[in-house]
Amino acid sequence: MSREVKSDIEIAQACEMVKIKEIIEDLQIKEDEWEPHGHYKGKLSLDLMNRLSEQKDGKIILVTAINPTPAGEGKSTVTVGLGQALNRIGKKTMIALREPSLGPTMGIKGGAAGGGYSQVVPMEDINLHFTGDIHAITTAHNALAAMIDNHIHRGNQLDLDVRRVTWKRVLDMNDRSLRHVNIGLGGPLHGVPRESGFDITVASEIMAILCLATDLKDLKARLSRIVIGYNSKQEPVTVEELEAQGALTLLLKEAIKPNLVQTLENTPALIHGGPFANIAHGCNSVIATKLAAKLGDYVVTEAGFGADLGAEKFLNIKMRAGNIDPSLVVIVATIRALKMHGGVPKDELKKPDVEAMKKGLSNLEKHVESIRAFGLPHVVAINRFVHDSEEEIAVLKKWCEDKGIEVELANVWEYGGEGGTDLAEKVVKVIDESENHFKPLYDLEASIEKKIETIAKTVYGASGVTFTKEASKQLQDFKTNGWERLPVCMAKSQYSLSDDPAKLGRPEGFTITVRELKISNGAGFIVALTGNIMTMPGLPARPAAMNMDVDESGKATGLF
Amino acid sequence: MSREVKSDIEIAQACEMVKIKEIIEDLQIKEDEWEPHGHYKGKLSLDLMNRLSEQKDGKIILVTAINPTPAGEGKSTVTVGLGQALNRIGKKTMIALREPSLGPTMGIKGGAAGGGYSQVVPMEDINLHFTGDIHAITTAHNALAAMIDNHIHRGNQLDLDVRRVTWKRVLDMNDRSLRHVNIGLGGPLHGVPRESGFDITVASEIMAILCLATDLKDLKARLSRIVIGYNSKQEPVTVEELEAQGALTLLLKEAIKPNLVQTLENTPALIHGGPFANIAHGCNSVIATKLAAKLGDYVVTEAGFGADLGAEKFLNIKMRAGNIDPSLVVIVATIRALKMHGGVPKDELKKPDVEAMKKGLSNLEKHVESIRAFGLPHVVAINRFVHDSEEEIAVLKKWCEDKGIEVELANVWEYGGEGGTDLAEKVVKVIDESENHFKPLYDLEASIEKKIETIAKTVYGASGVTFTKEASKQLQDFKTNGWERLPVCMAKSQYSLSDDPAKLGRPEGFTITVRELKISNGAGFIVALTGNIMTMPGLPARPAAMNMDVDESGKATGLF
Repeated sequence: MSREVKSDIEIAQACEMVKIKEIIEDLQIKEDEWEPHGHYKGKLSLDLMNRLSEQKDGKIILVTAINPTPAGEGKSTVTVGLGQALNRIGKKTMIALREPSLGPTMGIKGGAAGGGYSQVVPMEDINLHFTGDIHAITTAHNALAAMIDNHIHRGNQLDLDVRRVTWKRVLDMNDRSLRHVNIGLGGPLHGVPRESGFDITVASEIMAILCLATDLKDLKARLSRIVIGYNSKQEPVTVEELEAQGALTLLLKEAIKPNLVQTLENTPALIHGGPFANIAHGCNSVIATKLAAKLGDYVVTEAGFGADLGAEKFLNIKMRAGNIDPSLVVIVATIRALKMHGGVPKDELKKPDVEAMKKGLSNLEKHVESIRAFGLPHVVAINRFVHDSEEEIAVLKKWCEDKGIEVELANVWEYGGEGGTDLAEKVVKVIDESENHFKPLYDLEASIEKKIETIAKTVYGASGVTFTKEASKQLQDFKTNGWERLPVCMAKSQYSLSDDPAKLGRPEGFTITVRELKISNGAGFIVALTGNIMTMPGLPARPAAMNMDVDESGKATGLF
Repeated sequence: MSREVKSDIEIAQACEMVKIKEIIEDLQIKEDEWEPHGHYKGKLSLDLMNRLSEQKDGKIILVTAINPTPAGEGKSTVTVGLGQALNRIGKKTMIALREPSLGPTMGIKGGAAGGGYSQVVPMEDINLHFTGDIHAITTAHNALAAMIDNHIHRGNQLDLDVRRVTWKRVLDMNDRSLRHVNIGLGGPLHGVPRESGFDITVASEIMAILCLATDLKDLKARLSRIVIGYNSKQEPVTVEELEAQGALTLLLKEAIKPNLVQTLENTPALIHGGPFANIAHGCNSVIATKLAAKLGDYVVTEAGFGADLGAEKFLNIKMRAGNIDPSLVVIVATIRALKMHGGVPKDELKKPDVEAMKKGLSNLEKHVESIRAFGLPHVVAINRFVHDSEEEIAVLKKWCEDKGIEVELANVWEYGGEGGTDLAEKVVKVIDESENHFKPLYDLEASIEKKIETIAKTVYGASGVTFTKEASKQLQDFKTNGWERLPVCMAKSQYSLSDDPAKLGRPEGFTITVRELKISNGAGFIVALTGNIMTMPGLPARPAAMNMDVDESGKATGLF
């Protein structure tokens, strides 16, 4: 079974894709229920969802992971590989993934479409403009910004306090120089001067909204509720008051349709939406997940970062918005990353170190406990890397078995679906044999403080939560504004269970400090910020863009 | 032949489009030479151009107009109508048009895809995100901007003078508050503070480049030559020095492919690229025009604004870049607009006024003279409006005949191709029977001053050209930098033959003042600015966006 080692882009470019039309036909989708975007991408219409509404839902498998480290976990790779493997063992399976943001691609080489022999294709398209969804979000977001500043310039009837306009602008670009800007300069013909800034598009509330909306009507209702800032009485001002919701919905009417592509083994994959996993909820769209569940008997999908952020938000926020029931959670770990959690520095990961790995297992253990707290069946997937020793694998397996944790090796990077059939069999078996007592962790009727405390204690293992003076004041304001019944979206470091990125493994005896609350009223959640969260990345000293090229025939190089 | 009056969007939505695949098959385009974008739009590959390279070129008909007035000329409508009409009389015809910018659609109701029964469809798509070309240009432009500021932030090895970075950022949005901004604020982690600004995307030099490039290789070479600013020695710094040309070309590799759509009568139309007609050359891409000439025996295409700007640049800049030979120029005039040039205010245009019209004919006369100066056959097309009187039409026709000017009525707004068959017959006849002595107006070897003087005297009827002190200094700098051999792109008011928008008709005894020169080294022209040119529009008091909506089925309203 040994193969020569190729780069991701070489594997992807050598792949025999089938025309997307063939996949459409296999899925029994009618001609007026989809639109081609090139020969290998399609957009599925929302009418298809309506036609299938009475159909039984497939089983939803959420792929999450331990806290990410520079060693890499390969969550997308396992998601794609498991989807391919389920198809190989005869289960009709769909994959649902987030769409990658173009901006970061310019900074650091590497795509976000799986890896090795478990990738979605066409990978160049997926990592560049794809079907234009993110561009549509950029446009809608900035159209709203232009309307806000035009409103102020034209007399400011809504009495917006220019110091309290919270709606910024966005670009799908890593551009640190736009984080803090002064706009409206140059004199009275050119707007009203004020401070503002740019985020990267995937941090736009509109991205979160698109991913939580269930149809066009819900999309418009959510857009209407966006809070753009506060008036001089410090009351919130919404998009509806600006009469912008119709135009914004119009600008998003194609972007709301999920995108169909395929994996290297021609397994159908819906790739749709990709909100930030800190200030937003970090999962592909509700529409894509629900549609995948209508089209497949099994759906493999993923959530951003580790289980403390991605899975928690998937299970507390996305599931509620979409009224979807998950069947099982796969928790991905790698021997390498466990060793890092156990204290091994990055350049020594190739050396076997059973003791360090055992120490790092505390991180995995905490995530297993969290998923158990949600009442969900789960399987640990060991994503195999070349340098993993047999002893390390054996110890890890034994540790799981001793604790009654289902575990399976996956070698999908090297062997594609073939390397994931054991995991697939295990997943199917556990779904069939386990009881599912899924329940969100907190009640929406609970106070904001209580919701945050529940997450911090149950998921992070914190001893408590502190609110800064500013955050405490905001708690009061949010209650006054009637926002208390919304779920909470935690913005926390992804590297640690705590709010200190340096604390690897399973930190104990720590408290979480909430320093600021933000309202995402359209998305329908309260963002609780702990630590500094970067919503506009920068480029490195030598951006990956400097190595990119395309030859005269249109073939890309330097992308991955 | 009378029909009930419907709005443009009603006509477009009621139209029976054929699937784009059928048009592809009619044009004998092979499956791997195109890609569908939905069922009614396609992108044609550059391989198709290579396959057809040996084929004889069709005849290129340029549609231009008198100086625009608020009364409207209907240049796009005549372009589409004439294309439909040529097909009706049995000539295999392609249409080539600019793609509309989304930003202005948010401001003022109305699309840019023809009108009445002479439109290109699907009009909603064409006027919104279309196939994403403009979004790709926005992305490439801003990727370059991010790389520039990152370069400065990371040590500024190229010694860029932060006061002389000329590359701004762009958005496809009417957003006056972004015209003048300060960026890089917020402290040392967030870039180096400097003044900058945003233009609308269609004003990006990258848009002009995309429209003048002949293939991917030429595109990359042009992108490499872009001047991004000046170093501390005031020497120009280019994209090549920043090593960004590969990434920019990669970001544009799909946008460079022309888009195929159809008219209401299923005539094939290529819609591709749309640079500003003041600071750039205002025509669809060279690639689309050349490909249309390979696919059709006749090509009807247009240039922005009146003949003094659009046709002049088409014939001096685009034709040279693309090495294309035009066969005939159609000069569009309306009775209404001629009356405005003759002094009638906008709200009195419905009243017949032969004397005012006769006075306004001086404007048309000057444009006819200019086209004659290029040595090209030409036909005046009277774009008929409902309120035109028979007497006005008769006088206009007689005036043309007396001066030996070929003239024909077109009623394509009301009757589509059927209303343009007389014009079509006339155009074919004039092409067949006239001699074509086409030659650009000036030699590239001439000095910059001489080129500007030639355009001002021959095309505008000016008595001379004055250069401000600043422009005179720039003339020297441009010579030092070796830019003297480039053609000149005049940025002048579109409303008047002079540089004063208030001077309608045919002003005389005026001089043109060049106040500033700008280099578009990638596009390959020198921009000569006369008067104030707005490169970032604003929104009106009540933006059209406030009336836009989309219903639950995805049907748009309020767009047109």
